[in-house]
Formats: sequence, structure tokens, C-alpha cells
Amino acid sequence: MDGQGKEGGGGAGSECDVVGRAFVEYYYQTFDANRGALATLYGGTSVLSFEGHRVAGAEEIGLKLAQLPFEQCRHSICTIDCQPTPSFPGGILVFVSGNLQLAGEEHQLRFSQVIKKPISVTRPFAL
Amino acid sequence: MDGQGKEGGGGAGSECDVVGRAFVEYYYQTFDANRGALATLYGGTSVLSFEGHRVAGAEEIGLKLAQLPFEQCRHSICTIDCQPTPSFPGGILVFVSGNLQLAGEEHQLRFSQVIKKPISVTRPFAL
Repeated sequence: MDGQGKEGGGGAGSECDVVGRAFVEYYYQTFDANRGALATLYGGTSVLSFEGHRVAGAEEIGLKLAQLPFEQCRHSICTIDCQPTPSFPGGILVFVSGNLQLAGEEHQLRFSQVIKKPISVTRPFAL
Repeated sequence: MDGQGKEGGGGAGSECDVVGRAFVEYYYQTFDANRGALATLYGGTSVLSFEGHRVAGAEEIGLKLAQLPFEQCRHSICTIDCQPTPSFPGGILVFVSGNLQLAGEEHQLRFSQVIKKPISVTRPFAL
């Protein structure tokens, strides 16, 4: 039953799904290893909402990510949902949930994030 | 600092924010009172991902929502993030998190959902 795609839905194994999952893998590997480099994934019209605060444009987003109040972190992905965006052919909407381990913290944080490619919207948050 | 919008980001109180929040209120009131009526909010190219299962089209989505394995429920919204979709002017991407109380259950479930208007993508899930 998992990922039971219908026409237009982009099932598991579809191009949408493969691209979305590869992007998520790259995004969080980069986040954990060198999050300053994430800025290159955003464009001039990109928007990042992070725990209720919103910044726009690649430069501001890069600054925001660089200034997050933690250094080392490790994301573990639990679920990835990919869908095509019919209103913008070629676009992908990805919903991610998982755990975030911060260095020096005993407990992991839950997080959810939405990434829309062409990348314009994200929202990580700790539950 | 909350909802600090920049140009193109749609700050708190912007049209994007007002429309998104009104839509969320209507969506969950309808979900809790008469969720069969939610089908009218979806179109032919809409896609619903629900806990890893994906259905497409208003009719199939309505059927899926009607067949969820619970009857009475009550959503309490904790956070709403709205962003415009630059690649599709007039579109809105809304990220919602909150709690879901099912009738007869002692504990609430956490949920997150993404709604893209024109509505095409949602994903509620229980953590």
C-alpha cells in the first residue's frame, strides 16, 4: 500500500519520488556537514520560515541558517512524501519528518520540514 | 520577530497570511464537523498523501477521507505558516501543526499537514 500512486500523483519509484528523495538526502547531509552551503540551493524569490520567523532571498536565508543557535547536529529522516506540483510542471513538494540530534543534548528533537522545488519554501520546527 | 515578512515573503497580516489562516480554520472546522464535504475543496489534479498512502482526484480523496478509521475528532491548531508560491502567483503554501483528539482516546495525537492552494497537496500524519 505504501506510496500507492495514481496518475498525476507520482507513485513510489516515480521520477518525482526519486528526485525528491535524492534532494532530501543531499539537503540534510549538507545541513549536518556544512550548512552554509545550503544557501546555494535557494534563489532570489525563496522564502524560509523557521519556527515562525520568515526570511526571504538566498543571502538572508544563508545568514539565518548560519546563525542557528547550535553547531553540530545530525538529522535522521523518518518519512519522506513527494508530490508533483501540477500548477508548476517539474516542481516537487516534499514533506519530511524525522529526528534532530544536537551535540551535547541527551534527547533528540522531532522535526518536520516542507521543501518546495524549485526551492522556495521550507519550515523546520522542533516539536 | 514573529512572522517577520520581507518582500515576497508575505508577513503576518499580509493577504497571503490572512487567506491561509482563514482557509485552515475552515478546513479543520469542516474536517471535524463533516469531513465528507472536504472533497469539494479538491480538484481533478489534487493529490492527498496520508500516512504514506497517496490518492489523486477529488472523488478518490473524498473517499479516502470518508474511510479514515475514526469517527468523531477534534483538531487543535498550534502553528500556521503561510507562504506565497512565487512560481504560481496567487498560490499559497500552508504548513500546519497541532493536536488531534479522537473520540474515546485518552491521549491526543500530534499532527502536521501541508496544504497547497490551489489545493493539491496535503499530508496529515500522526507522530
